[in-house]
Amino acid sequence: MNIQYILELIGTFTFAISGALAVQGKSEDWFGAGFTGFVTAIGGGTLRDVLLGSYPLTWITDIYIIYTILVAILIAGFFNKVLQKLRRTLSIFDTLGIALFTVAGVEKALSLGVRWEIAAIMGMFSAVFGGVIRDTLINETPVLFRKEIYASACLAGGLFYVMLNSFDIPRDWNFICSASFIVTLRVFAVKYHINFPQI
Amino acid sequence: MNIQYILELIGTFTFAISGALAVQGKSEDWFGAGFTGFVTAIGGGTLRDVLLGSYPLTWITDIYIIYTILVAILIAGFFNKVLQKLRRTLSIFDTLGIALFTVAGVEKALSLGVRWEIAAIMGMFSAVFGGVIRDTLINETPVLFRKEIYASACLAGGLFYVMLNSFDIPRDWNFICSASFIVTLRVFAVKYHINFPQI
Amino acid sequence: MNIQYILELIGTFTFAISGALAVQGKSEDWFGAGFTGFVTAIGGGTLRDVLLGSYPLTWITDIYIIYTILVAILIAGFFNKVLQKLRRTLSIFDTLGIALFTVAGVEKALSLGVRWEIAAIMGMFSAVFGGVIRDTLINETPVLFRKEIYASACLAGGLFYVMLNSFDIPRDWNFICSASFIVTLRVFAVKYHINFPQI
Repeated sequence: MNIQYILELIGTFTFAISGALAVQGKSEDWFGAGFTGFVTAIGGGTLRDVLLGSYPLTWITDIYIIYTILVAILIAGFFNKVLQKLRRTLSIFDTLGIALFTVAGVEKALSLGVRWEIAAIMGMFSAVFGGVIRDTLINETPVLFRKEIYASACLAGGLFYVMLNSFDIPRDWNFICSASFIVTLRVFAVKYHINFPQI
Repeated sequence: MNIQYILELIGTFTFAISGALAVQGKSEDWFGAGFTGFVTAIGGGTLRDVLLGSYPLTWITDIYIIYTILVAILIAGFFNKVLQKLRRTLSIFDTLGIALFTVAGVEKALSLGVRWEIAAIMGMFSAVFGGVIRDTLINETPVLFRKEIYASACLAGGLFYVMLNSFDIPRDWNFICSASFIVTLRVFAVKYHINFPQI
Repeated sequence: MNIQYILELIGTFTFAISGALAVQGKSEDWFGAGFTGFVTAIGGGTLRDVLLGSYPLTWITDIYIIYTILVAILIAGFFNKVLQKLRRTLSIFDTLGIALFTVAGVEKALSLGVRWEIAAIMGMFSAVFGGVIRDTLINETPVLFRKEIYASACLAGGLFYVMLNSFDIPRDWNFICSASFIVTLRVFAVKYHINFPQI
């Protein structure tokens, strides 16, 4: 439980940074960057919980999430030159972030008693909708249309989780296996430029 | 009940196809097209239910909706050349879709005890917000700003439904009359290029 | 209570007008303008209540809100030439609107028992998300990225409110002080072109 919580905070942290940095070159100010970082970090999980009717929302009751995001925004502001250079590393953090959010999202949905198809979709929504909202705010093509397999890696990982879950794999192992599965898919896709065929 | 349910699935089906085809020429891949189709199909009804606080959402408990959308996406993918040629026919399906969604939305809202003005608005939201979300995702001007009377036909149809309802017209007859009313309005508007005056 | 309610209706009214006028030069028709005005007026408060899980939504139970918006849309349509010339005055109305929405949002959130940080954020969301949704609909850069301190004035005002509240300042006085604080911040920022530094 504790480790999962810490990993989720790390995911929130990296999403907040990616949101705050995304406004670069759009002539936005510090506050706009912070606002975007905030919405990016909470967007996916919020959508999941609103769709599932799971109230109160996590970030409304757990104040550490807000402060994690605040720290991320300050770091994004003060060190943005360095961070822009570290983009490749950040992309690894982003990959870790979507992997963790997917698995945490699937778990939460399953714990609320929905079917496995819905749980997998909720995992994907948790992971990608923060970025979709970020890109809508800054008038960019949403990330899920640009990147090599991205949302699809999350959906595949979500389905992988519910499959292992049906085999009664212990929850902690499942968490690690499914998150690693997503990271692996994504790393391969980026490395070898693997895309779905054009429609 | 049964007929209404089947008609709603048809509406969902055509919305999913329209969403999946909308990404054409935007260099999106199969997965992006499917994602857009999914969001288009569930968007309007989801917004309606979230606004009304009506949980659980229909597509979360009724798995047939998910599979209907999946089939629609596969068809959109495999037959997209044919479907693009069938656009005129598809537009008829879309018209049928918004008519069914409007009436089903009004009914649901009334059954939850809201006022008639709110019920008519909820009918319109059910019908058009899937398309609005689709167009936001793909960075297009939302459909309700482009097409000849579209959302307004839904609102008029919703008001027509609540009017007939206040005259104690039987529910099934009302469903058919109001949906036909919307289809008629829309067909006339497209045929004779009827628009609201510019503001 | 009564005065606050009237002030909130005024805020809703001015937001509806600003939304309806925003479509100018986008070749939208009366209905599109009205739709945008409606969504602008209810968007912020709706998001706040959905996030807080506070059902039923205000505008669904209080029909005066719908009619206030309808009147605003009609006025925006019939007098839009005059109103476009009155822009400077309207901007004052908008400023009053965000100030009132912020304070009303903070109050509502506090009354639901959330922490002060969350209450301040909810106040800001109430005030700015109507405009964000409006700008997303019409494919513009969201207002909070364009204007001199805007959302930040709301957040500051929200924090000011919770601070005074912790000093047990009577609710009515706090309402007036905090709203005036926001108006003052915003007027100064516009007058002296005060912006946050670029990130």
